[in-house]
Amino acid sequence: MKLFSFWRSLATFRVRIALNLKGFEPEVVDVDLLKGQQRNPDFRAINPQMLIPALVDDGRVLFQSLAILEFLDEIRPDPPLLPGLPHDRARVRALAQIVACDAHPLIVPRVRNFLEGEFKLDEPQRLTWIRHWIAEALVALETHVSRDPQTGRYCHGDSITLADICLVSHAVGAKLLDVDVAPYPTVARIVDICLKDAAFARAHPLNQPGAPKSAAH
Amino acid sequence: MKLFSFWRSLATFRVRIALNLKGFEPEVVDVDLLKGQQRNPDFRAINPQMLIPALVDDGRVLFQSLAILEFLDEIRPDPPLLPGLPHDRARVRALAQIVACDAHPLIVPRVRNFLEGEFKLDEPQRLTWIRHWIAEALVALETHVSRDPQTGRYCHGDSITLADICLVSHAVGAKLLDVDVAPYPTVARIVDICLKDAAFARAHPLNQPGAPKSAAH
Repeated sequence: MKLFSFWRSLATFRVRIALNLKGFEPEVVDVDLLKGQQRNPDFRAINPQMLIPALVDDGRVLFQSLAILEFLDEIRPDPPLLPGLPHDRARVRALAQIVACDAHPLIVPRVRNFLEGEFKLDEPQRLTWIRHWIAEALVALETHVSRDPQTGRYCHGDSITLADICLVSHAVGAKLLDVDVAPYPTVARIVDICLKDAAFARAHPLNQPGAPKSAAH
Repeated sequence: MKLFSFWRSLATFRVRIALNLKGFEPEVVDVDLLKGQQRNPDFRAINPQMLIPALVDDGRVLFQSLAILEFLDEIRPDPPLLPGLPHDRARVRALAQIVACDAHPLIVPRVRNFLEGEFKLDEPQRLTWIRHWIAEALVALETHVSRDPQTGRYCHGDSITLADICLVSHAVGAKLLDVDVAPYPTVARIVDICLKDAAFARAHPLNQPGAPKSAAH
């Protein structure tokens, strides 16, 4: 198993957490997005979309973080990342998708670059954009997890699920971009608990090769 | 089962296709996004994110289109919307997520409204934005499905999957916004086949209550 990764990629952070939780130890190949290495022919042959994460397993290339998380859960079901009942599984997946569908796609580098190149938005405007969508998702997540009795120690009961993995990736991304998660107390509580877990801590962007010593934009 | 729907919502279109394929006939509640009905207190109590689709089943509110599609596949497995093997399931989910994660979140009304309200982008600029991200996803989908021998009559082999549902929602959205899918021949071929299926045709945005007679922005 081979993971194409970059320290700052929040989607890859999610996959690293799941790999750690499941006890997989893939070979990690660094794709430096800041140096444009995703556009190298070698990587384009792996993922023509030039996006990470990409996971190669048994000669097959897997892409899209949520699809990879579900794959890992299927090939190694223990510990499970989804609850057992369909309604509960839908709740967990939907919370994960608030991050992975509604929020994160809006703030990735290719979108920021397009806002700059096409519409000449400057850095403060791009930060306004990013922080707006980060906060929108934090509001959505907090509203859901704070009002729902199914929330427990984690987003869904007392076991780690896909929802926690996505929640943590979002909150860590928020912190890297100077968005305070304290106004979202249920989110903040769950994030704190998760980041004490070695599977999350080892996967943290700032603990990857090439990462700076502290948060940076 | 109760579906909160609006004719123009591409995410709800996906859910309608799956409901039709599975033979569910939910009560449909129209939420007119153009009139702002998603902000009515009645609907905010259903989904505090004020987004559709929302599906109420057995007293539980489900949200996020991909989570709902997986739910429908779990509670009524026939016909299956995912293949059987983990690598194949990951491929289908990833193709679906090119649409539902990478592309669609960038073009929804709340994003277009923010571009207008915050950055004063005018309608031609907003159309540039929308058409750029629609085309990016079409390129990504075409690259994947045209080069992969697992593509068959549909995106994955000869059965309809989540990938086809998302592909069709994207192509129909493209058409509504005057983006030609003809330059993406494999995508166009699969879309044509799907739209001949009654489950897709009945779910089409322009066949819903309140829809105009032909495409409009």
